[in-house]
Amino acid sequence: MDIAKAAQGLKGPGADALQAASMLGLIEGGADALSALRELVADAEAGKHTDAIVPADAVLQAPIPTPRKNVFCVGRNYAEHIAEGDRAQKQNVGVTEHPVFFTKPPTSIVPPDGDVLIFPQVSTSIDYEVELAVVIGKPGRNISKADAMDHVFGYTILNDITARDIQRRHGGQYFKGKGLDGSCPLGPWIETADAIADPHALSIGLKVNGEQRQEGKTADMIFDIPTLIAALSEGLTLQPGDIIATGTPSGVGYAMDPPKFLKDGDTVVCEVSGIGTLSNSVRAV
Amino acid sequence: MDIAKAAQGLKGPGADALQAASMLGLIEGGADALSALRELVADAEAGKHTDAIVPADAVLQAPIPTPRKNVFCVGRNYAEHIAEGDRAQKQNVGVTEHPVFFTKPPTSIVPPDGDVLIFPQVSTSIDYEVELAVVIGKPGRNISKADAMDHVFGYTILNDITARDIQRRHGGQYFKGKGLDGSCPLGPWIETADAIADPHALSIGLKVNGEQRQEGKTADMIFDIPTLIAALSEGLTLQPGDIIATGTPSGVGYAMDPPKFLKDGDTVVCEVSGIGTLSNSVRAV
Repeated sequence: MDIAKAAQGLKGPGADALQAASMLGLIEGGADALSALRELVADAEAGKHTDAIVPADAVLQAPIPTPRKNVFCVGRNYAEHIAEGDRAQKQNVGVTEHPVFFTKPPTSIVPPDGDVLIFPQVSTSIDYEVELAVVIGKPGRNISKADAMDHVFGYTILNDITARDIQRRHGGQYFKGKGLDGSCPLGPWIETADAIADPHALSIGLKVNGEQRQEGKTADMIFDIPTLIAALSEGLTLQPGDIIATGTPSGVGYAMDPPKFLKDGDTVVCEVSGIGTLSNSVRAV
Repeated sequence: MDIAKAAQGLKGPGADALQAASMLGLIEGGADALSALRELVADAEAGKHTDAIVPADAVLQAPIPTPRKNVFCVGRNYAEHIAEGDRAQKQNVGVTEHPVFFTKPPTSIVPPDGDVLIFPQVSTSIDYEVELAVVIGKPGRNISKADAMDHVFGYTILNDITARDIQRRHGGQYFKGKGLDGSCPLGPWIETADAIADPHALSIGLKVNGEQRQEGKTADMIFDIPTLIAALSEGLTLQPGDIIATGTPSGVGYAMDPPKFLKDGDTVVCEVSGIGTLSNSVRAV
């Protein structure tokens, strides 16, 4: 079920309330709120709301335009991406024993069709990373792997735009190089968990100006979603609306020979099967 | 001016509105909101509000109980702390060319007199770090060093509680080891910028069960506050209510020989001159 499409595509009894409510409110509303929305969708599909907005006409926001905390991200979670990075940096770090967690601030979020920003005076090596993002529904701490999937509300796509030069220069901490304004395209919508039979059986890819750069399978994650949720929630409470980006497959620009960074006017399209596409333009400011 | 003390200590015309409003609302309200609060304080001090709550009777929340994003933090910002860390870890990293930025999530915040949590099954090396925290008032991106102090609303104290074992094991990214629940005591209040003549001329210290462990001077920061604000805001918008912890002086537990980590029942007291003290108990859960 495409929540954003559904909420934006409806009018009629109850629809106003749902549209006024934020996506965070819907997620926090749990099963009841989702049932109410499903009922409205069914009514609309049955032709009961003839004034429904056609989804194609709606301008989509990011499904969670302003998260209540930084987005949780995972680095180095696909073997071929680790290999290309080690090769490009002439190092041999390999697979880490524990997931590599870092964050991106709410100010970095970009909606579908919004602009990825380049600040030429700040960074000259802006790169892309398509990722499957998990949206948490049920709160929890010390969540077991066995219970982890019960805490997932749904899935969306995230482009972990990264300033490679900045990523490495702050004592090795990724945050600053991953946290610039316009560095976190998110969308196009949240696909609810019930609609994705197996989030580890999706294809995941990215094109720059039509050229296929990344092409992978979520089956290749080193730490799968239950493992990530269990590791992240050890002593750390996850809340409804939290977003966890699960890492990127190989094909990033900096690891190409020669490296290919994003430039003003580029179009970047992320695609994850079962969810959709997330398209953004690159704009130098 | 102690905002939290003032807002909690007042009753009378306008005071209800100020108390109902959040600290974030007050900060976003800018000069007008602060003027209104100052007027109320002056009235109360002139005896006009005889039903004012005595500050000593108020139970203080963290001055910003739920920040709208992760707290920005700075690592390795005092030379003696860098030296003790390098010594303890038998390495020679030294001073980094750029500030080391990382974050702590809103779920980690602890109020004055609240509990620092220990999860014995998650970490056996919980450590303390007293820090001067800057609260941003005026938003901005690409803020120059010359303008930086105009963006500061005020100052508070932050204890950057750290799980040392976890800090190092996630591919070297600090986030998970710095992000546990109960790992970010904040307070006791925000001292407005006008009340701190020079934030680089403060003494900063920490005691565990009455024993002085850390004792430093904010004059010893490697990257001073204007430098931190300028570096952090390069391509990254700072917003009212953002918190920036500026790093800790030497004396942390893990660098002692033998290391001394926090344990259930300990009392940790942070003190920064010109602001006050932030006291917390340690509780194993």
